[in-house]
Formats: sequence, structure tokens, C-alpha cells
Amino acid sequence: MNMILLSGGSGKRLWPLSNDVRSKQFIHLFKNEDGIYESMIQRVYRQIMSVDKNAKITIATSKSQASAVKNQLHDTLSICVEPCRKDTFPAIVLAASYLKDIMGVMEDECIIVCPVDPYVEDNYYEAVKLLESLVAKKTANLTLMGIEPACPNEKYGYILPEDLGQVSRVKKFKEKPTAQLAESYIKQGALWNSGVFAFRLGYLLDKAHNMIEFSDYQDLYQKYETLESISFDYAVVEKEKSIQVMRYAGAWRDVGNWSMVAETMKELIKGNVVLDEKCVDTQVINELNLPILCMGCKDMFIAASSDGILISNKTCCDNVKPFVEKMDTDITFAEKSWGTYSVLDTQPGSMTVKIEMQKEKQMKYHSHECRNEIWNILFGKGRVIIDDKEQTVRPGDVITIPSGCRHTIIADEELTLIEIQVGSNIKRNDKKVYGQKEIGYGSSEGIPALV
Amino acid sequence: MNMILLSGGSGKRLWPLSNDVRSKQFIHLFKNEDGIYESMIQRVYRQIMSVDKNAKITIATSKSQASAVKNQLHDTLSICVEPCRKDTFPAIVLAASYLKDIMGVMEDECIIVCPVDPYVEDNYYEAVKLLESLVAKKTANLTLMGIEPACPNEKYGYILPEDLGQVSRVKKFKEKPTAQLAESYIKQGALWNSGVFAFRLGYLLDKAHNMIEFSDYQDLYQKYETLESISFDYAVVEKEKSIQVMRYAGAWRDVGNWSMVAETMKELIKGNVVLDEKCVDTQVINELNLPILCMGCKDMFIAASSDGILISNKTCCDNVKPFVEKMDTDITFAEKSWGTYSVLDTQPGSMTVKIEMQKEKQMKYHSHECRNEIWNILFGKGRVIIDDKEQTVRPGDVITIPSGCRHTIIADEELTLIEIQVGSNIKRNDKKVYGQKEIGYGSSEGIPALV
Repeated sequence: MNMILLSGGSGKRLWPLSNDVRSKQFIHLFKNEDGIYESMIQRVYRQIMSVDKNAKITIATSKSQASAVKNQLHDTLSICVEPCRKDTFPAIVLAASYLKDIMGVMEDECIIVCPVDPYVEDNYYEAVKLLESLVAKKTANLTLMGIEPACPNEKYGYILPEDLGQVSRVKKFKEKPTAQLAESYIKQGALWNSGVFAFRLGYLLDKAHNMIEFSDYQDLYQKYETLESISFDYAVVEKEKSIQVMRYAGAWRDVGNWSMVAETMKELIKGNVVLDEKCVDTQVINELNLPILCMGCKDMFIAASSDGILISNKTCCDNVKPFVEKMDTDITFAEKSWGTYSVLDTQPGSMTVKIEMQKEKQMKYHSHECRNEIWNILFGKGRVIIDDKEQTVRPGDVITIPSGCRHTIIADEELTLIEIQVGSNIKRNDKKVYGQKEIGYGSSEGIPALV
Repeated sequence: MNMILLSGGSGKRLWPLSNDVRSKQFIHLFKNEDGIYESMIQRVYRQIMSVDKNAKITIATSKSQASAVKNQLHDTLSICVEPCRKDTFPAIVLAASYLKDIMGVMEDECIIVCPVDPYVEDNYYEAVKLLESLVAKKTANLTLMGIEPACPNEKYGYILPEDLGQVSRVKKFKEKPTAQLAESYIKQGALWNSGVFAFRLGYLLDKAHNMIEFSDYQDLYQKYETLESISFDYAVVEKEKSIQVMRYAGAWRDVGNWSMVAETMKELIKGNVVLDEKCVDTQVINELNLPILCMGCKDMFIAASSDGILISNKTCCDNVKPFVEKMDTDITFAEKSWGTYSVLDTQPGSMTVKIEMQKEKQMKYHSHECRNEIWNILFGKGRVIIDDKEQTVRPGDVITIPSGCRHTIIADEELTLIEIQVGSNIKRNDKKVYGQKEIGYGSSEGIPALV
């Protein structure tokens, strides 16, 4: 099975646990059967692999998310990185040409595009797998998967099929109708649009070449910034006459806001939280390293991270976005290809950051123009390279890195350090990256192998 | 006016803003008329000085609070530090002998003992000042101040006077009666016990010498640890036959729990907080450096500090103590004589601390046995002394301090540094203090001049 998993989204709706670099699919929200917390992308990846252990999965994502994907999934995973953020049509075309030109997928093979964030049972992907044989029959150009609605939800898109067969031609699409309209659609056999599309690779590439002038993947990658931002629905689905839909009757959720998270969580609390005996129907997710004590809270949803604290009645918690957009928020946590980056303190002229590196990972070789850095090694062993000179480091060691010096660190084992940034103009984009020094372990943060 | 201000209390009731080293009187809760937040001790001190600018105030406090007192009040203040925590009788006797032997107060002079944490109007201390002339009349051994009750509060102590005169002999005392009993006392003219006692210094010292064998202040200080823990009420007031009480009719509050804080606060929020338009009667104090967003909260009281986060219905918020006692809480914030100490990160084998020093202050000269320290200077200029060698420091400088090295830092201007502690056994009490090196500016953290 060839799959493109679309991993996008900027993530203000699940503030403070999501932010511009940490989309909702990377938050460890739900426990798997072994009691271990997984993110949505980890859950979906595990579910697909359990249905088809030979599935060839390519994650289509943005530069800002590529590190988190690498950090959360296997290193051997194929990632197609968009040079900049466009809508779903350019992203799918880029991934399709990546599959053809880099991965060697044949034009007659089936490609299944899935969003990375539905919360479903494992058998969902058994249904997805059936799309492959439907595409092979060539009875339609585009094959969709429709979910039998559990309720007349106003937030979903609806597919109206021509008949009630297991597979049917599509009559029309309806985006976010009123509950009343949704109810009448459902009586006519309408299905929720799951966002899953299956097609022959050649079909999509033909469409793409009609709309975009490009020769191959690398050419498309180069001109990606000039492409029109347009959704796959608008560019392809709405114009296609030959579409069929397969019905799926299992549970399906778009966990895109806090009330859906609260409904889906099996536990009342995650993290260091105490609820007194007077708390009723209150759920708390605490990612902070300090205790939360709730007393007499009724119907509350609470989430805390180093970005902020949300304390909301459950009837209000889906409305965070407009408030968060008005906040002057800095990003205080990021997942990198080598581990995690957490801001401990910020003040004019300095920033204090905790860096936790995974074993056998390394940062890119880089320098900063406007700041000095000091690395205080807390835990683990590794090697530091500064202006091509290597030295080993261990807890208690201090490395000073004047502005302009090229530097990297290689974690020979799990390693933690405190980075002190000092400078009059500390900016995230003050970073110059040099050709990778492959001294230790490979690093390919965000850039696909061939580019 | 000679005053002893009793500053005690361990402070779990106002968790997370109070802790074992930060009692409630040091929290900046209420705005003064200029809109600047004051702590209770700052408010009381300001109110006393506004009534009598020549008042001689001695703060009787514990070692753990002496630094915070120094940090919040004028350096010239007289502080009498208890070597260890006993009850109010030993504390008052120690302060009384401090006044006689160190401050040269005569035995015939009046001493007024006041708690440091009542929330009152300025004219309260005009009434307190009147006690002096009452004591001078020698019509009683002990003069108290009683507050005319606003309601039959069950949490206060009551004084029953013999008659309803402005000054009256005391008939008896009643601690925390039921509301019904309190109501009947009030009908008989009972008053709330404000905890204010006035007496001639000689009176108390006589009492003390009858109960404790000691020659003078220094002798008492030396044997303080062997004294019995006993309250002033129990040791003196309950046994004294000659007591009078003066009535006071103004507003008076013991701000000892969160519901009293909420009632007394004039604002809904303090710190980085957003309340949506659906919030009703919700108050938030946020000492954290990250935003709190409240949506649809009703009748809630919320307080956040680096020690933890309390989210409570207002009907429950006075019950934090039993929950906090069960928590495994580390102290993450402390006021020192030279500034503040905030833990940013803790993990096995290391601790990261932000140290903010006031201008022209210095730490004590000290060393640690089981940890190395690294000082990363972020802001300001100063001097570091390590094993008697002095060097100047400025932002970006790094000082490594191996275990066993004597060290101190002198802030020539406001100075901020990040201290990295690395060691297998990091403990608060791993600190050896050396004779003060008076290189820069005086430091007398917690130890009275003569001891």
C-alpha cells in the first residue's frame, strides 16, 4: 500500500499544547493498549503498520514540522518536505512526484492520501486498504472513503452518494451544513468526508502537469514557492466527474478541538494533577513540571504547558483561537530531529534553553551572528565541534561559543544541556547552517535526501 | 513608639504563593494608593511610619524569614532573629531583651507587640499608638486592643470586657466559639482579639526571668533552642489578673486564607491573565511568566506560581492545606537579603537556578561540598571572589566553581545570573559559610549584628 499522510495545520485550536511549530498531531494525548501515551501521528502510523506491515508511507509536511516527524517516528520513514506552506493540492502533487521520481513508484500504482489526525479504531485502515483494489478496477478516476454519520455534525463535510451500495458514484459534496440540513442529507444516505482520496499515481500527475509546468520532483521543489495555494478539493475533486465513494461504518473522530480531546481521553488527568473529591467532570492535562490542585471544579477542561495555561468551562473550550491570536506568545517548546528544545527563561539580552538530545543524534553544524552561546552540560556524554576542533564533553563541562563560531554537538548517549544565549538581538532566524559534518551520526533535519 | 512586629507562620494556607520560606506576609497581594503592589509586611510598616515617623520597629522573626524581611523593608530596620522556631512567648521575650540590651530601651518604656499581617485602615495604628499612654498610666499590667466585631466570625478569638467603656478591664477570653455563642458574646460587648499587646518592658522581663533562667539577650540567644515552645497567650495573658482592653471600631481583617484575599483584592486579576466575557466573579493571581486564559469560569479563585497552580471554586479555596501537605513540593522561589532565587529546572544530578541580585548587595562567602557550580552572567556588572581572588564579571562571562571553593558575588549594579548546580547529591543545606568578606557592600543575612 502506497500512502501519503498529510501532516499540516498550524495549531492554535489546541493552545497551549499546540503552537506554530507543534501541531496537534504531535501532542501525546492518548494512551495505547500498553498504557503509553502516543501522539496522533504515532497512533496513525502504528495502526497502518498493524494492518499492512509493508505499507510504504510518505509523510507530506512542512519544514517546521519535519523535525517533529523525525523525532516521533522511525528514522527510516520517507518524508516529503514542502519548502514553504501551500495548500493541499501543491502538497499532494509534490508528494506524488516524490513517489514517482525518488521512490520509484509506477504510474499505474494506487496512491492513498490520508489525513494524519483522525481518531479511529484499527479496522479503519483495513477499510482504507480496500481502496487499493477499487482503484485497480478503474471504475472511477477518484475513490473516496465516506463515514456513516453518528450524528448530524455541523462541522464536517458531507458526501451525497447516488445510491446506498457499499461502493457508489458520488452525486455531490456539501461542506458544513446546518444540523437540520445535515439530518436530511443523512436520511438520503450521506456520508462524512474522511479526507481520504485514492487514485492511480498517473492520474494525479496528468492533472498536475495540466495545471503546473514542471518536469520532475526537483524542478517542482525549486518552483514550489511560486505555486498557487489551492486545496485538493477545489483543484481536483470538485471538477472531477468520475468519483466513487466506499462506505465505512466504524467510529471516526476529528480530534481538532478541546471538547473532542476531552471526549476521547479515557482518563480525567494527565501529569502532576490532584482533583479534590468535590471536582465533577473535570479533566486536566498538565505538561508543566509543577503540581496543579483543583478544588470544587465542575465541568472544567484545563491544559497547561510552558506556552500557557487554559482554564475553561467545557462549553467554552473550543473557542480559544481568537484569544490566542491576540496574545503575544513566544514558542517555548519545539521538537527537533535530535530531541527537544524548551525555553526556561527569557529576558532582554538573554535566553536560557534546556536542550535534551536523543542518543546518537547530532545538531546541524551552524553559527549565529548576533549572539554568544554557552553550553552547560548537565547529563550524558558527547562531543562538541567548534570551528572544526572536536572535544568530548560530560556533566559539569562548559563550552563557550562566541558569535560567528561554527558549532555542533553529537550525543553519544542521551544528553541534556542548558544553553545560555547572550546578545543584544536574539532571534530565532539568526542561524547559518554549514554543509553537514558527518562525524558522528547522520542528521537530515527537515531536508529530503536529494535536495 | 517601641514596637515588636511578630513575623511568623509557615504558610501552607496560601499555597502556591506561600511556602515554608515565603510566608503570606511577603506576598505582593494588594495595591497601595499609588497603584504599586505591596506585601502585608510592607503595608503594615508603611502604615505605622505614616502615623509615627519616629516609631522604633523591631521585627521578631525566624532565620528563614530574615532575608525576606531585609529584602522587602529598609536595610536600617532592626531585626531580632530567632535561632530556631519556638512559639510567641520565647519570641517576644527574645525581642524584649534585644530591645533592652542591644537597643537600649529603658525598662519603664512601653512596648507594643503587633502581628505583621492584619489588613487595616491607616487610622488603626493611631489607635495602637494610644496604647502607649494607657500603659503609662499603670492602671493594668497588660493592655490589649479589641476590635468591635463586624459579624459573629467563628475563626477569631473573643475578649469579653467587664463593661462597655472605651477602656475596660477584661473579664475573660474565648477562642473560636460557634457563631451562635459568638453572637451572644457580641451582645455582651465582646471584641475580637487583635493580637496586639502593650506593656512596660520591665513587666515582661520580670515575667520572663521568673520562667526562664537567663542573664541577658546574648545568653538567651545561646540557649534559645532549649526553651519551651509556648504561646504568649498561654504563658502570660491567661495567667495575668490585671488586663485592660481598648475598643477599636474600624475595619480589621485577618487575611489568612484565599477567600479573605479574594474579598480584599480590589482587582479581578494580577499578572498575565485573560478572562473571557463569560467569566463571572473569577479572580486570578498569576506570578508565572506565561499567560493564563480563563473561559466561562464562574466563582473561581486561581493562583499560580513556580511552586504550583491552584484552581478552585471560591467555596473550597480555604481548604488547600491538607492537600499541599501531602504534596512532594520543592521550594522553587526564595527571597534573599541580596535579591531572589528561582529554580528553573531540576533533574537528577543537576539544578538550574536564576539569581537576581539587587544593586550593591552581595552573597555570603560560602562553599559547597557535594556540588560544582557554574555562574552564567546574563545582565549587569559585578565582582566574583573565588578562594580570595577577585575578578570583575559582565554579561556573557562564565565562572566555574568546583566543590570546596569559597565563593561570593558582589552586584555593583542590578545583576542577573543563571547558576548551574551539578553533583550527585544536591541539597539545600550543603553550604558552609565563612567569616564575611566585607569587600563590597555589607551583608548580614539573617544574623543580628551582635551575634
